Amino acid sequence: MNDEAERARDRYERAHDPSRVIALSDGVFAIIITLLVLEMHVPDLSAGQSLAEALDEVRPSFVAFLISFIVAAIAWAGHRDLFSYVRRTDRALIWFNVLYLLPVCLLPFAASLLSRHDEEPLALQAYGAALVAIAASRLVTWLYATNRPHLLYEPIGFAARRAGAMIVMLQGVIYAAAIFVSEYSIIVPLVIYAATPAAYFLGVAFIRAGAPPASAERDFT
Amino acid sequence: MNDEAERARDRYERAHDPSRVIALSDGVFAIIITLLVLEMHVPDLSAGQSLAEALDEVRPSFVAFLISFIVAAIAWAGHRDLFSYVRRTDRALIWFNVLYLLPVCLLPFAASLLSRHDEEPLALQAYGAALVAIAASRLVTWLYATNRPHLLYEPIGFAARRAGAMIVMLQGVIYAAAIFVSEYSIIVPLVIYAATPAAYFLGVAFIRAGAPPASAERDFT
Amino acid sequence: MNDEAERARDRYERAHDPSRVIALSDGVFAIIITLLVLEMHVPDLSAGQSLAEALDEVRPSFVAFLISFIVAAIAWAGHRDLFSYVRRTDRALIWFNVLYLLPVCLLPFAASLLSRHDEEPLALQAYGAALVAIAASRLVTWLYATNRPHLLYEPIGFAARRAGAMIVMLQGVIYAAAIFVSEYSIIVPLVIYAATPAAYFLGVAFIRAGAPPASAERDFT
Amino acid sequence: MNDEAERARDRYERAHDPSRVIALSDGVFAIIITLLVLEMHVPDLSAGQSLAEALDEVRPSFVAFLISFIVAAIAWAGHRDLFSYVRRTDRALIWFNVLYLLPVCLLPFAASLLSRHDEEPLALQAYGAALVAIAASRLVTWLYATNRPHLLYEPIGFAARRAGAMIVMLQGVIYAAAIFVSEYSIIVPLVIYAATPAAYFLGVAFIRAGAPPASAERDFT
Repeated sequence: MNDEAERARDRYERAHDPSRVIALSDGVFAIIITLLVLEMHVPDLSAGQSLAEALDEVRPSFVAFLISFIVAAIAWAGHRDLFSYVRRTDRALIWFNVLYLLPVCLLPFAASLLSRHDEEPLALQAYGAALVAIAASRLVTWLYATNRPHLLYEPIGFAARRAGAMIVMLQGVIYAAAIFVSEYSIIVPLVIYAATPAAYFLGVAFIRAGAPPASAERDFT
Repeated sequence: MNDEAERARDRYERAHDPSRVIALSDGVFAIIITLLVLEMHVPDLSAGQSLAEALDEVRPSFVAFLISFIVAAIAWAGHRDLFSYVRRTDRALIWFNVLYLLPVCLLPFAASLLSRHDEEPLALQAYGAALVAIAASRLVTWLYATNRPHLLYEPIGFAARRAGAMIVMLQGVIYAAAIFVSEYSIIVPLVIYAATPAAYFLGVAFIRAGAPPASAERDFT
Repeated sequence: MNDEAERARDRYERAHDPSRVIALSDGVFAIIITLLVLEMHVPDLSAGQSLAEALDEVRPSFVAFLISFIVAAIAWAGHRDLFSYVRRTDRALIWFNVLYLLPVCLLPFAASLLSRHDEEPLALQAYGAALVAIAASRLVTWLYATNRPHLLYEPIGFAARRAGAMIVMLQGVIYAAAIFVSEYSIIVPLVIYAATPAAYFLGVAFIRAGAPPASAERDFT
Repeated sequence: MNDEAERARDRYERAHDPSRVIALSDGVFAIIITLLVLEMHVPDLSAGQSLAEALDEVRPSFVAFLISFIVAAIAWAGHRDLFSYVRRTDRALIWFNVLYLLPVCLLPFAASLLSRHDEEPLALQAYGAALVAIAASRLVTWLYATNRPHLLYEPIGFAARRAGAMIVMLQGVIYAAAIFVSEYSIIVPLVIYAATPAAYFLGVAFIRAGAPPASAERDFT
């Protein structure tokens, strides 16, 4: 136990332990998921207005809440998928992880912008930009970590790496298309933002179904 | 240790480890419990108004805070009860869990709506709908997980499964009745929302008292 | 390992594991500590007003923030002290713990009330009432848990139980006195609220210094 | 196992376990990182104003958000670095840690002040004061803990202690200079606040590169 090599190894493991990176991230995801509701404001009734009419005005906020809730939950599930392979962090992975949390933290602002100005192309584009940034930073973190066997419990096969990258890139591309389209339409990008999570669930189901028995991608969430 | 079967098993356990699902959920419950207070606003004094009079106007907010605090605490305790049996998650359980957190996250909005429009049937119904949704998603998650022995530390007996489902269904039915009644009365649904937690505590005490010594339902919280 | 008695014991330990009670509580304390700052509002400048003058108006908020921050930190440290002895929870301890978190969650409201109406006896009393409620629920939780050896790692001596109760009761009595005094003075209760944490630190130091070597009270925080 | 000395050691370890200090801190950092976005307010459009123009007014908030996000992330990474060496806490370390969390908790207020009054020297100075306070309390906590081998997994060498102190002191000195300069310039302190994180990253990279193989400073984040 007091052997020098063993002490050096223990020190190395402690310095690269991912548990606090995971704890910080779980905290951030939990807070974002719950903060989103604060962007829904209970309406005051103007003269002669019924509560039903007033609540009708909250509907865009509610839609933005629902979409953002699912987006944040998917971002968390993807984070959990990745870190279920990660045995050790290094300095770069810690900062890539912070970079991943940054656009997630901007989600409440983007959702609020979208719900308050839901007919403005710029609001649709800003929301899409946050979603693209989440996908892009998740992709970078995924590619970085899965390519470093010394950070992983065991090496990840090429097919799993590619599947994990594809499912995120697909999201990013769809969201980027929504940004482009929002110059011409208000409905189409909204439908895209609402429907992409469903596409994600189907995509993961498809990957899982086609994966060989003991492969990593078989357990994508 | 380097045996292929053992590595596959380790990989399986890591991918199905429930610890991050629990961490996210504890975070969400902790935040909801504390965010509820933000819906109580310190009053400004209008001309000639005493602080006591102004605080009197905060009373509906305070009542809504108290009820919602207990509702959220019961939802957390039920979550803890369930996951004390859960050794592994799977993809469906993770998403059922997210589904369970969704109405919990809406609670601050529903509480704020109730406290600001406490004489409106619609506000009473919206609050009741959130409570019914919490009960319904808890029921689904309970039924799903307790029926899958490979996700559990040990199989759960039929009596425990039924008791766990009954106590949640009972809540849901009572809350649904409150929604129905709120078309005709403002006081009755409020009393129901305030009294149901007490009924829940009694119901659990009743289940525990009647449960055989080493049964799961003996440790319901 | 597959022995029936052993499985029953494992089941018992899982059902009484305090880890999620601690996780929820740490979450609540972390959120309260950080939410307090939200009650400090950045001032808008009225005509001809300098920022220094405007910030001067924020001073009561800042004082209320500082006092409440320390109060919440002490409540957390006391919770940590207690649960460092707790090996198992039971149903009552879980609900006592929820009861302890309730007045802690009200602290941001009480602090906001105090900072906005810092010359109103009622605001001083409401703030004091929150502090008394924190002390009272902490006392009940302490007395309940330390009196149940089957919930503890090892029995706690009478001197430690009494010291732990005294330090909390002392707080409660001082805060109750501040409530009483606030009918006649505005400065005195504020000074009491600000000075009691210092008294607490000294009291704990005094208890630690007088405690026999391997006693529980020697490690009070 | 029932030996008296062993029980005393177990009791000692439980009372000095740093896990809850870390959990509280991770919670606080996660919340601060996410609360910062709440200081960015979605603009209402005044007559004839486009959303692009309105969003332009949010830019100072966005800059303050970005800087504060990085500051909080660095404060967290430094906390993680320190506590990767910490095996046990004592009473003083717990309260030093609370002291470290205090200015971190003030960051959202300071960021809001800066974004709302970004041409006021006083706002620049208040923001700088928060950053200096974070650096100062981090320095004190670092120097206290690293000087107490009984709290550490293994003693920390003098070079590592000095490097850890230097990188924090450097931050503090730069921020103090920004406070001083803000009497004469508005741009310069803003540039300093934005650029110091980059200097920190370079400084840590420099320390890592120059550190001997198995030294503690080699794993600074």
